[in-house]
Amino acid sequence: MKTMHPELTYATIHELSGRIRSREISPVELAEQAVARIEQVNPSLNAFVTVTAELAMEQAKQAEQELMKGNYKGPLHGIPIVHKDLYYTKGIRTTASSKILKDFVPDYDSTAVAKLAEAGTVLLGKVQTHEFASGTTTNSVHFGPCRNPWNLERVPGGSSGGTGAAVASGIAYMGTGSDTGGSIRIPAACCGVVGMKPTYGRVSRYGIVPMGWSLDHAGPLTRSVLDASLSLDAMSGFDPKDESTVNLPAPGLKMEYAESLKGVRIGIPTRYYYDNVEADVLTAVQAAIAKFKELGAEVVEVELSKIGYARSAASAILMGELVAYHEPWLESRPEDYGADVRMMLESGRNLPASTYLQAQRARHLVVQDFLDALSGVDVLLTPATPLTAPTAEDFSRTLRLAEFTMPTNLTGLPSLSMPCGFSPEGMPVNLQLIGRPFDEATVLGIGYGYECNTEWHLRHPEL
Amino acid sequence: MKTMHPELTYATIHELSGRIRSREISPVELAEQAVARIEQVNPSLNAFVTVTAELAMEQAKQAEQELMKGNYKGPLHGIPIVHKDLYYTKGIRTTASSKILKDFVPDYDSTAVAKLAEAGTVLLGKVQTHEFASGTTTNSVHFGPCRNPWNLERVPGGSSGGTGAAVASGIAYMGTGSDTGGSIRIPAACCGVVGMKPTYGRVSRYGIVPMGWSLDHAGPLTRSVLDASLSLDAMSGFDPKDESTVNLPAPGLKMEYAESLKGVRIGIPTRYYYDNVEADVLTAVQAAIAKFKELGAEVVEVELSKIGYARSAASAILMGELVAYHEPWLESRPEDYGADVRMMLESGRNLPASTYLQAQRARHLVVQDFLDALSGVDVLLTPATPLTAPTAEDFSRTLRLAEFTMPTNLTGLPSLSMPCGFSPEGMPVNLQLIGRPFDEATVLGIGYGYECNTEWHLRHPEL
Repeated sequence: MKTMHPELTYATIHELSGRIRSREISPVELAEQAVARIEQVNPSLNAFVTVTAELAMEQAKQAEQELMKGNYKGPLHGIPIVHKDLYYTKGIRTTASSKILKDFVPDYDSTAVAKLAEAGTVLLGKVQTHEFASGTTTNSVHFGPCRNPWNLERVPGGSSGGTGAAVASGIAYMGTGSDTGGSIRIPAACCGVVGMKPTYGRVSRYGIVPMGWSLDHAGPLTRSVLDASLSLDAMSGFDPKDESTVNLPAPGLKMEYAESLKGVRIGIPTRYYYDNVEADVLTAVQAAIAKFKELGAEVVEVELSKIGYARSAASAILMGELVAYHEPWLESRPEDYGADVRMMLESGRNLPASTYLQAQRARHLVVQDFLDALSGVDVLLTPATPLTAPTAEDFSRTLRLAEFTMPTNLTGLPSLSMPCGFSPEGMPVNLQLIGRPFDEATVLGIGYGYECNTEWHLRHPEL
Repeated sequence: MKTMHPELTYATIHELSGRIRSREISPVELAEQAVARIEQVNPSLNAFVTVTAELAMEQAKQAEQELMKGNYKGPLHGIPIVHKDLYYTKGIRTTASSKILKDFVPDYDSTAVAKLAEAGTVLLGKVQTHEFASGTTTNSVHFGPCRNPWNLERVPGGSSGGTGAAVASGIAYMGTGSDTGGSIRIPAACCGVVGMKPTYGRVSRYGIVPMGWSLDHAGPLTRSVLDASLSLDAMSGFDPKDESTVNLPAPGLKMEYAESLKGVRIGIPTRYYYDNVEADVLTAVQAAIAKFKELGAEVVEVELSKIGYARSAASAILMGELVAYHEPWLESRPEDYGADVRMMLESGRNLPASTYLQAQRARHLVVQDFLDALSGVDVLLTPATPLTAPTAEDFSRTLRLAEFTMPTNLTGLPSLSMPCGFSPEGMPVNLQLIGRPFDEATVLGIGYGYECNTEWHLRHPEL
C-alpha cells in the first residue's frame, strides 16, 4: 500500500491541528495514512513490537465524531502516536522488548498513556526499546534490531529507539519515550528529531516499566520543539500514583523567543561536555552556538566543577535500582534475559549498598553544581551526544552515547535534544539545552527561537 | 559539694520558668545547683563526656542580666541543659563517645544547639552516647560505662543514655537526644523520663553526627510531657541546611486533654507490639490503658498487617547509611573503632545495594500501613520497650530494647515515650504514643492528659 497523502507524512502536530479542527483533514484519513506508512517503512525499520491498526482506526473514527460534534479536545486530537513498549497499555501487550514480559497484557493504562488518550490521540502501536531499556546493544535480542531511518546500517539510538525511528520516518507525529540516562534525547539525536526530558516530577511514571526510579523520566519525541511542548503539556501533571510528581500547571513555552533571543543568556560548560566530542558533532554544535549569538543571545562560559562525579554516581544509582526491580525475575527466570542484560544484572547484585549511597551523596554535589551554573544563565548548551548514530557493531562508540545526557538524569533538570545539523555522511546532529528545575517554558522557548530561524528540523530521511 | 537547693533538683522546666521570670529564682543559682549536682552524682553515673561548668556559669549570668533587663526569652530561659555528644557545639569537643572524634572541636553549632541557645538555655556539658550511637553495648568502650540512676547495675538505655541519666538524676532539666531506632525513647524508658521523637522533618539534624540519615530524628528528653513540648517547640523548624525539614510552625500541645480524654480514640495494635512483652512491662502498660479509658478515651484494636517487614527493613536501611558515612574512617582508622562497632561496620560493607533498596520499598508498605491504622484513631498506644533496663552483661535482652521504637523511625511518625509505672524491682516502665505525621500537638496533648492524672513522673531515683 502506498502513502496516500505524501504531504502529510512529515507534517507537525502544530501544522495538522488547525486543519483537523477546521475539518480540512479527517483523523480517519490521517490514521489511514499512518497505517499505510507503517506497512511501507516498518519492514525495513522494525520499529514496532505491536501494531494496533484496528484500534487506531476506531480511535480515529471516534475522534472524527467528536470533532463533528464540535467537541474539540485540543491540539493532539486525532493525532497518530506511538508508545514505547515500556508504557502500560490496558488490553495491549507491553513487552519492554523482553522475553520475560512478552505475553504481559496490563489491565490498566499508565498515567501518561491515559492522559494522551484523553487528549484525543490515536494509537498506532507499541514500539521497540532495548530489552527493559537496559540492553547494551540497541537491538532487542527478542524482537530483532530496530534500524535508523537515515541509514539502515545505523542504530536509532536508545532506549526509546522505536519511538525515534517511528517519528523520524514519517509514521507517528509524536511518540512517548522514557529517559534514565538519555533514552529520550539519544534516539532524538540519532534520528534527527526533538526529544524532551522534562524536570523530574513533571510527568508521572506510574505504569511505566521502571529502570532506575530516581533517574527515570517520561517525555515526548516529536518533529518540532513546538510539538514537544504541546505533547509535554498533555503528559504532565501531579499524579497521586507517582509520589515524585509535583502539583504545578503544565509548563507551556515562552513564545517571545520566536522573534529574537535578545536578553537570553546561554552557558557553555567549560568542562566535560566539549572535551571529547567527535568532529562532525562539534562542527554542527559550534555553528549552532554562532546562530544563537546571531539571534541575539549572549553566550558565556560556565564552570561545572563537580561534573566529574556524575558518571560514576549515575551508574551506581542506576545499577542499584535496576537490580532491586529485577531481582525476583533474576532468581526465577534468569535464562529469559538476553545475555548482555543478564550479565549486567548479575554483576549489579554485588554492588555494595554503601557504593549506592555514596553515589546518592555525590549526586547532591552535582545538583548544586548545576544549580549554581544555572543561576547566571537561562540554559546550558551542549551537544546531545558526542557522536552521530553508530552501527550496532561499533560497540565502544555506542557505549559513549549517554555521556552528555546522563548528568541531567542525576540532577533531574529539564533537557531538550533538538536538531542542529548533519554530518558530512548525512547523519543528524542534535544539540541539548538544559534549564532550571520546572522551567521547561524557557528551555522550550529558547529551542523554539532557534527552530524558527533554522531549517534542520525540516530535513527528512528518504524511505 | 552538697546540693544547695534540694527542692529544685527534680523540678520541671514549666515549674521553674514562672519563678525565673518573676526573679524568685536566679539562673545563676540554678546553674550552681546543677553543677553541684553533677559533682555529687556524676562520679557514680558517668553520664558526662565533657562538663562545661565555666560556660554554664557565664551563660547563667548572661541569662540573669537579660532577665533583669526584662528581656525574657521564653520558658527555657536560664534552664540548665545537656547535649548528647553527637550534637556539634562550637568550640566544645564533640566526641560521639568515640576515639575517632575524641579531639574533634566543631567550629559551628548544630542547628538544634543554636536554637536552644537562642532560647536562653544554660549548657552544663556534653553527655554520653554509644560510640557513634552505634555500639551494641550501652557503654562506650572509650569513655567508660554510663549507669542508670535507678540502679547502677543497669544500663541507662541508648544511645542517648547520658541524656537519660542526666535528666533522671536531677542534673539537667532537659537534654537533647537523637533517635535512629529508638535512641531517645529507649533511654527515656530505661530512666523513667519523657522522650519525644518528633515527626521526620520537624527538627533539623544539621550538625548532628549522623547514624542513618533517612531514620535519624532529633528531639528532647525531659521530666514531663509539658517540658517535652516546650523543648520541642524551641528545637523545631525549617532549616535550609537540612533538606528533610519542613516549613511548619512549632507544634505546641493540645491543652484541652488535661481535663478529659473524652472523644479521644486510642488504637492498640493487635500485632507485634504486644506479642513478646515481659510481664513487668505488660502489667504497667495494661494498667495505663485502663487509666486512659477511665479518663474518657475510647480504646480500640487496630491492625498493622505490614509490621512484619519493619525490623528487617529498618536494619538494612540503617546498615547501608551507617556504612556510607563511616567508610572513609573504616579505611583509614579501623583500629580506632571499638571491636563491636568495627565488626558491625565491616559486615555492613557487604550489604548489597539491592537489599538496601528492597528495604526502602518495603518501608513504603509499612508507612501506608501505619497511616491506614491512624486514619481511624488519634494515636496508637504501645509499650516503649519490651523490658525494663537490663544489665550491660545481659546482651540478648539488651538487643531487644529497640523492637517497639524502630518501626516509627522507618515511618517517621511522631512517638512519645513517657512514664507509666514501675516494675516490682523498682525499675521504670514507659508507654509509647504514636501519632499522625506532624500531629505532635495531639500526641503530646494526650500524653499530657495522662500525665496530669497520674503521678509516675513525680517519682525520682534516690542518689
